Amino acid sequence: MYTLYYCPGTASMIVHLTLLEIGAEHELKLVDVEKNQQKDPAYLRLNPNGVVPTLVFDDRPYLESAALLMLLSERHPQAGLVPAAGSVERDQWRQWIMYLSHSLQSAFRAWFYPAELGYEEHTAVTRQALQNRIAAIWDKLDQHLEQNGPYLLGDTFSGADLYLTMLMRWSRNMPRPATGWPALNRLAQLIIVRPSWQKMVAIEGIDVWPKVSSN
Amino acid sequence: MYTLYYCPGTASMIVHLTLLEIGAEHELKLVDVEKNQQKDPAYLRLNPNGVVPTLVFDDRPYLESAALLMLLSERHPQAGLVPAAGSVERDQWRQWIMYLSHSLQSAFRAWFYPAELGYEEHTAVTRQALQNRIAAIWDKLDQHLEQNGPYLLGDTFSGADLYLTMLMRWSRNMPRPATGWPALNRLAQLIIVRPSWQKMVAIEGIDVWPKVSSN
Ligand SMILES: N[C@@H](CCC(=O)N[C@@H](CS)C(=O)NCC(=O)O)C(=O)O
Ligand SMILES: N[C@@H](CCC(=O)N[C@@H](CS)C(=O)NCC(=O)O)C(=O)O
Repeated sequence: MYTLYYCPGTASMIVHLTLLEIGAEHELKLVDVEKNQQKDPAYLRLNPNGVVPTLVFDDRPYLESAALLMLLSERHPQAGLVPAAGSVERDQWRQWIMYLSHSLQSAFRAWFYPAELGYEEHTAVTRQALQNRIAAIWDKLDQHLEQNGPYLLGDTFSGADLYLTMLMRWSRNMPRPATGWPALNRLAQLIIVRPSWQKMVAIEGIDVWPKVSSN
Repeated sequence: MYTLYYCPGTASMIVHLTLLEIGAEHELKLVDVEKNQQKDPAYLRLNPNGVVPTLVFDDRPYLESAALLMLLSERHPQAGLVPAAGSVERDQWRQWIMYLSHSLQSAFRAWFYPAELGYEEHTAVTRQALQNRIAAIWDKLDQHLEQNGPYLLGDTFSGADLYLTMLMRWSRNMPRPATGWPALNRLAQLIIVRPSWQKMVAIEGIDVWPKVSSN
């Protein structure tokens, strides 16, 4: 039995999706980031970083969204979110998750948290630089999917695709959303029809995405 | 047989240390970052991100320093860099590596690459904010090691400690180097006497660190 401390639309989404894909029994506890509940003393005892998500099982808290994706995928191999141990695909899977976490998720962290760079709002220069940095990552991912897709690992869906799709969703209000890149958009279309995604959207109560095109 | 594309003192160090700990046969190829060789077309074919490290084996390139630490540790379990699969410690190990990569290594990337925020040099405000952010991470790590150390996983050394020590070294010219935190300094002292660290320093030809204290 898993307990997930989550907030709709945030980094906890990848853990929520993973639990739904696995079909593992779990309980959701809302940590309202708008109300700053992630800094409540009781929550900080579970997660000293004061962020969502936290996953609790066997009376222990586990942190870091990308690590939780890996942990759950490996604990429940029958869900098919992770390639077999020892395979080339397993190494590529780990590498993609690490790249998405280190390069893309952390660029979004900078984008959404100007205070961590000392400003209430980004300077125009930094705003543009971060947009360029994120766009350069979409370029690379799109090129990879164009040549080797439709999924990150080729023909086979994995948990890494759920993670990438969550991160694509974070770009929806940026000047150039990820869905403007064709192979990225194709991947998003494959993921959002999965029962796990649809259930997650309903439970978290978030806007349907991508927006239905108006032409 | 492994081939590591590396540059002294950079993120490739964790992969070099891991290879030395394992005792795996390997060849080093210098990619001189000062000469921008990481952007050479031939190298970009191995590593489209244009960064070090890249590890090649079985005719395939593998990327992402933290992923390579995990990959090598898991391929060579007898080296004792990773706790047993399925153990609580294994999950904590993965979590620490993910945290160090996502939060700390990416904060250093921002510190060392102001151009990625649009500036030739950081504004004074951002400089201070990044120093605070990195210091806040040292605070948390130091507190964890104080209570649960001397290693990240307690009494037992693991590959996560090598990674943390490399990152500590990156702070040596900052206003507040990591070695100013007592439990972090104790960990560094345990790591730098390991044969792998000493061999790495000699082979990479980097300055001995921490500096011998002058009192
Ligand atoms: N490295 C962490 C970062 C999580 C993170 O940045 N969470 C955000 C929501 S997407 C959060 O809790 N923000 C509130 C805050 O930082 O105070 C992870 O991936 O789990
Ligand atoms: N996420 C990559 C980042 C590696 C990285 O930032 N490497 C730096 C050296 S520490 C580099 O190659 N810099 C040269 C450049 O970015 O052009 C990893 O961990 O392997």
